[in-house]
Order: sequence, then C-alpha cells, then structure tokens
Amino acid sequence: MDDLVLHPMKEVKVVVSGEQRKLVTDLLDRIEATGYTIIAITAGKGHGGLQESHFMFGGMESLEMILTVVPEEKVEPILAGLKTLFSHQSGVMFVSDVAVSRREYFGKS
Amino acid sequence: MDDLVLHPMKEVKVVVSGEQRKLVTDLLDRIEATGYTIIAITAGKGHGGLQESHFMFGGMESLEMILTVVPEEKVEPILAGLKTLFSHQSGVMFVSDVAVSRREYFGKS
Amino acid sequence: MDDLVLHPMKEVKVVVSGEQRKLVTDLLDRIEATGYTIIAITAGKGHGGLQESHFMFGGMESLEMILTVVPEEKVEPILAGLKTLFSHQSGVMFVSDVAVSRREYFGKS
Repeated sequence: MDDLVLHPMKEVKVVVSGEQRKLVTDLLDRIEATGYTIIAITAGKGHGGLQESHFMFGGMESLEMILTVVPEEKVEPILAGLKTLFSHQSGVMFVSDVAVSRREYFGKS
Repeated sequence: MDDLVLHPMKEVKVVVSGEQRKLVTDLLDRIEATGYTIIAITAGKGHGGLQESHFMFGGMESLEMILTVVPEEKVEPILAGLKTLFSHQSGVMFVSDVAVSRREYFGKS
Repeated sequence: MDDLVLHPMKEVKVVVSGEQRKLVTDLLDRIEATGYTIIAITAGKGHGGLQESHFMFGGMESLEMILTVVPEEKVEPILAGLKTLFSHQSGVMFVSDVAVSRREYFGKS
C-alpha cells in the first residue's frame, strides 16, 4: 500500500475554442493520456503577439480549458500535436508540475 | 507589512462526481482547510486503471473539481481521507506547489 | 523553430467575487498581462483569518477565478495591486510555476 506516496507528473492545460475541443481530445487519445477534464471559460482575453490585436472571446464563441495529467514523456508529443493546431488557430497551452497518488491512473505503470 | 512576500503552500485539486462533493468538503473541514472553491466540469474522460474501462462522465452525472490550498502538512491527511473514498468511487487528486501572499488565510499562522 | 522548447513563467490565479472582476482585469491590462481566462466558481468556502468567520459564497454573489500567465517580473506588480483591492474586499491569490511553449504570447520577447 503505497497509496500515500506522491509521484511526479505533468499537468497540461490547453485553452482553445469549443470547436477545437475534439482536435485536442483526439490528440490526447492518440498519445494515450488516460483522462482529461474540460472546464468552461466564462470570459477571456486572447493572448496575442505584436502582429495580432487583442480580442475578447465572447458572444458566439465558447472557450474551454482542457486539463490533463500525464507522465513527463507525453508532454512533447502533446506540444508537437498542438503546434500544428495552433499554427492555424489561436490557443495556448501551459505545463506545470503536479504530484499524484495513483500514478497507474495516469498512464504510468 | 510583508504582504508582498510569497509563502509556499500546496494546491490540491480533487475531481469527483457532484454526489461526492460533500464527502470531500467534510474531509476538508475536518482537517481545517480554511477554504476551497468548486468548479463545474463540462465534460471529462475518466482516469481508469487496467481493470476499469474508460468512460465518459456525461448526461446525468455531474463532475466537479474541488480546489483547495493548504499547508504541506495537511496534504497527507487529505490523501489518507480520499484513499478511503476513492476505494469505492472513482476520483482523482493531484497536488502542486503554489505560493500565496497571505498564508494566514490558508491555515498557517 | 523552437516551438517545442518550454519557457518558465508564472501562473497567477485570483479568486474574487464577480463584481470585482473588472478591478482585477484592469490591473492585468495596466501591467500588460497579455491575456487571462475567467472561470465561474460553482461554490466556495471563504478563506478567513481568525477575526473573520467562514462563510459560503452562494445565492446572489457570484465567485470567479481569474487565471493569467505572466513573466515572473509581473507577479509583484499584480500582488501590489491586489493588496489594495484585498484590503477592502475578500479575495485570494496564488502563484505557481508553469512552462509555456510560446513565451511571446505571454508578454516576454
């Protein structure tokens, strides 16, 4: 019983429009992320570079945060997949360290 | 006035079905976590082990993320309490490092 | 193309009532945070010190989490601005380390 031991993993948050959800979750399925949760975003201000003007996500377009927890080796495949997606569409991703008690639930045996 | 100093704490996120909310918040009250926030989850894919098939939380069952910030010494009591809960029900928990400006708000004097 | 390289940034989460949203987003605009997302909070228990009794946010008052990702040097200006806000109103803020793949999206050139 090592259930109280915490194991290091990576939490990945991706913010995209609702229409892009399936592209992201298909990617997560493909790299065998074992799960994710999707959180609705009430409002947001876009992350824009110098070329791109800031804009509000509002009205018609829904915005979502897709959150998953994966072993470190799956972060790069997610990044690589999103790079293609984000070259056409706006979206942001950030990665942080988390610890989980049951790592077998997150694709680490 | 050291309000601009940041103090290390632990952020704990628990993802459970809405029916289990009270079990989790009762646990947090018992260990004297000073607060928590509950975020609705729009959709999610379950984290399943080898025995358990993957499934979608959808339709009837609501899913929530309960987020709390506690001093490090309270992480193990939370883990121990959730271990019992999660032995009967699915649910996941992950822990990350955060810093707060007003640690007295989080049960650290 | 270093799009797969991750750069360290800070994730700041601020939990405030809906009425205070604009005060926080104005502050973020002023320090030129390039974006943020706002997540509705279903329920929450307040973070109270010894003087302040615990209370539920419910019914009439909405509660929101404002999440932004900024370069480290912007954390202190945010803290300083929120310190003024939080001296009158309740609210909490926590900071964590994140990594992003496109740092130019977050105000770092």
